[in-house]
Amino acid sequence: MNVDAIMALSIEDMAVFCKKKGFVYPCSEIYGGISGFFDYGPVGVEVKNNIKQEWWKTFVTARDDMAGIDGAIISNPKVWKASGHADCFTDILVECQKCGNKVRADHMVEDALGQQTDGLSAEDLWKLIEENDLKCPKCQGPFSKPTQFNLMFKTVVGPAESESSVSYLRPETAQLIFTDFKAVVDNNRMKLPFGIAQIGKAFRNEISPRDFLFRSREFEQMEIEFFTHPKKTDECPFFSEIQDLNLNIWTSEAQEAKADHEKMHLKQLVSSKKANSWQAYWLGMMLRWFMDLGIRQENLRLREHLKDELAHYAGACFDIEYNFPFGWKEIHGNADRQQFDLSQHAKFSKKDMAVFVEETREKVVPAVATEPSQGVDRAFLAFMFDAYDDDSNRGNVVLKLHPKLAPFKAAVFPLVNKLDKEAREIHESLKQELPCFFDRSGSVGRRYARADEIGIPYCITYDFDSKKDKKVTVRNILDTKQARIEISGLKDTIRGLVNGDIAFEDLKPEKA
Amino acid sequence: MNVDAIMALSIEDMAVFCKKKGFVYPCSEIYGGISGFFDYGPVGVEVKNNIKQEWWKTFVTARDDMAGIDGAIISNPKVWKASGHADCFTDILVECQKCGNKVRADHMVEDALGQQTDGLSAEDLWKLIEENDLKCPKCQGPFSKPTQFNLMFKTVVGPAESESSVSYLRPETAQLIFTDFKAVVDNNRMKLPFGIAQIGKAFRNEISPRDFLFRSREFEQMEIEFFTHPKKTDECPFFSEIQDLNLNIWTSEAQEAKADHEKMHLKQLVSSKKANSWQAYWLGMMLRWFMDLGIRQENLRLREHLKDELAHYAGACFDIEYNFPFGWKEIHGNADRQQFDLSQHAKFSKKDMAVFVEETREKVVPAVATEPSQGVDRAFLAFMFDAYDDDSNRGNVVLKLHPKLAPFKAAVFPLVNKLDKEAREIHESLKQELPCFFDRSGSVGRRYARADEIGIPYCITYDFDSKKDKKVTVRNILDTKQARIEISGLKDTIRGLVNGDIAFEDLKPEKA
Repeated sequence: MNVDAIMALSIEDMAVFCKKKGFVYPCSEIYGGISGFFDYGPVGVEVKNNIKQEWWKTFVTARDDMAGIDGAIISNPKVWKASGHADCFTDILVECQKCGNKVRADHMVEDALGQQTDGLSAEDLWKLIEENDLKCPKCQGPFSKPTQFNLMFKTVVGPAESESSVSYLRPETAQLIFTDFKAVVDNNRMKLPFGIAQIGKAFRNEISPRDFLFRSREFEQMEIEFFTHPKKTDECPFFSEIQDLNLNIWTSEAQEAKADHEKMHLKQLVSSKKANSWQAYWLGMMLRWFMDLGIRQENLRLREHLKDELAHYAGACFDIEYNFPFGWKEIHGNADRQQFDLSQHAKFSKKDMAVFVEETREKVVPAVATEPSQGVDRAFLAFMFDAYDDDSNRGNVVLKLHPKLAPFKAAVFPLVNKLDKEAREIHESLKQELPCFFDRSGSVGRRYARADEIGIPYCITYDFDSKKDKKVTVRNILDTKQARIEISGLKDTIRGLVNGDIAFEDLKPEKA
Repeated sequence: MNVDAIMALSIEDMAVFCKKKGFVYPCSEIYGGISGFFDYGPVGVEVKNNIKQEWWKTFVTARDDMAGIDGAIISNPKVWKASGHADCFTDILVECQKCGNKVRADHMVEDALGQQTDGLSAEDLWKLIEENDLKCPKCQGPFSKPTQFNLMFKTVVGPAESESSVSYLRPETAQLIFTDFKAVVDNNRMKLPFGIAQIGKAFRNEISPRDFLFRSREFEQMEIEFFTHPKKTDECPFFSEIQDLNLNIWTSEAQEAKADHEKMHLKQLVSSKKANSWQAYWLGMMLRWFMDLGIRQENLRLREHLKDELAHYAGACFDIEYNFPFGWKEIHGNADRQQFDLSQHAKFSKKDMAVFVEETREKVVPAVATEPSQGVDRAFLAFMFDAYDDDSNRGNVVLKLHPKLAPFKAAVFPLVNKLDKEAREIHESLKQELPCFFDRSGSVGRRYARADEIGIPYCITYDFDSKKDKKVTVRNILDTKQARIEISGLKDTIRGLVNGDIAFEDLKPEKA
């Protein structure tokens, strides 16, 4: 691995790579695009769908304590009044008095002064702008005083343009889980503790979108709200499954002391009262999910939120951060939200959000002991960066995606064009079950390079010997080692390799 | 089957059933809901995801001539100028002069006079309103003259509320395929003929949403734009695969003669020049997809559009209709759109949309020979209605969904609670691979009924004999026949039944 090359890979480089290879395009680029909106291209949509399906399979289908939903993007606007978004989901905006340029105050100050602005109020930011005489980066004009800008996209529902018909595109998927909570409990006989999961789009009218998919205006989330008895947030029966995971953890104390993160066991979060056991469990499950899908453990860490970052209603809050070449960045958030959300919706809707607990024969409003909230697009970026290897030995980018995430599981090549028919038969058979790519164009070396660049884990070549020995050559993307495999068992072999039931070494490969 | 009961099932009945069983809820119902928006609940989201995944697998993954994308919901507003939606995507609205009630003119006239209004202009409708002295259904007030109402939801992107920052929620997924067309061709080396497919949400601000998921304001589409050389729309090499399908076809002539649909072979559509062969092929593929997933052939028909229904740029247009208990309704549309879309975008974006054709060494703007456009929610409704069986012999609703679409593939029951542990082991093993439901509550009969109602195809009971013979009883939802199956091979058996590799009769079942 060429470490220098990876270190140099910026988010802009990744955007260029994604566009060139058909992973992600700027949306409506033929019209000059639109800032903060992206389209997934032919290989990108496969990777993104694989990420979503793996997540759903692991956390919804394979569990008995989870129910899924798929809520609407536009809902009754009272939802956003109750959640606080209508009044408080704002960023601080300053406007240039000369050219009218509107910018996000904290980002402008960060860019100008190179200092963190987390948690600063509009007054704090204005003080910094005045003290440092910061001007509009476009025209050098002076800024007007900061104002609050609500990040929700508004739209009018129905033909009457009255105040009551204004609604919003959801800025998060979570609230739909709360508004459907009682319906899910009632008709699925869910008993505490349990979770409700959802995958879907959300929208935030960012003042200045930037960093490619990182801060876009339209994005997708995979969220779980996990409900427990409010007095039993610390009674996770599965805690032992993850307690001994030894991970990078950046505590609030370490952050305040300007120290680095340290390796800690997850159980230390609970024993030190930093997290309840359900929250620690779900943090562990999410970290393990990333690692099971190929992300290197050293590139992941947990960051505890500082006290002044926490919302008034929240208990502990942790981010999962990924070590991007340009620094550690949040890819996942998890808050202990206590009873805040259901209580708010009970208050605003006048509906009873309490559930009956059989053992103690009481009604309680459940606590959200833990809220694993994952950005799909940020997960996509983490997987892409972790997989991206600008390997100087091969002379092309090698995208070492986990086979479960790869857009195609195999590529089939005829060694020469006159073996087309036989190779195509193999391809036709494989692709009924697994996404598979057929390539007959250019040298085999060129075809390997093309497959490497879009992360196809196994390349299958039908050659002159194949007719005789009924075998093909299968090449592993990771180390280019090759194994000779019976055509009759090929589908099972590839399926086993993808699922992890077979290791490539089991096939006794040789160095090419 | 109780035919009377099925005949009586209205769309409102289905909405009640869907809510009660956790398939679909009115969105944000705790706040009184919002007209035209729905949330899929725990079993509904599984069925919907299965529909989408089966469609994608069949029409994208398993084909070499198809590329997928996943475009943004909000795009540069020029997209909708070029497509014509900004100026022409309207319904005709009349407003009550007394109470301000705004209604869709054609629907109001249809409801009041019981006559079709397809293709009538605002003037035609106003004439009918005046001639018949139609009044506001709410307050009996008089209507003002009709106006055009644009169905796109508007929103402002970015902090500046200028005209240029107004954009729209996409009213269809198709246009994103056209705007990404060149990027997809360039970096995926696609050669004509080929298609681009997309699944995603779309939004239409219906004046009066109605009929549950049928005419909602937020919905999901599965669309393909299939591009061919403009002179080769009739050269589909796969036509023979579907030409002999013998289907209900309602020609424009039959409609004009007030005659019923008739059985015809698909090839007759081509020989009579009603459709090009690519369009006939894709109509056949889509009909076959519905039938492969369990919809009865007699409940499907093709309806040819009448000449005056066609857009000026369109060649032939066909709907797939489903025979709902309340009548035949469109669930799928397919137009031959010729070169209209790419030409429009070439004109408005000033980008070259032509592709190079190697054989003839010429550049051509491809034609959209066929545009299979499927509403996900309408497909969901068709599958639900076709599966719904209010079987009087069992005394409960039986939802006979195809196993591939079922929310859970199996349910596991311990015959009595003291067999819990053994039954749960089977469940744990199965659900790592297949969505599986565990139920220990109430009598086995009650549990069968519960599984029937949400469409679980196979119920597995662990009983007192199971310890000795290492077998369980598997019951088929369709006819309640039961087979005794080895626990060691259970996972393979259930997987085989779901995939269709094993028929239940192969297991030598007995009548219970």
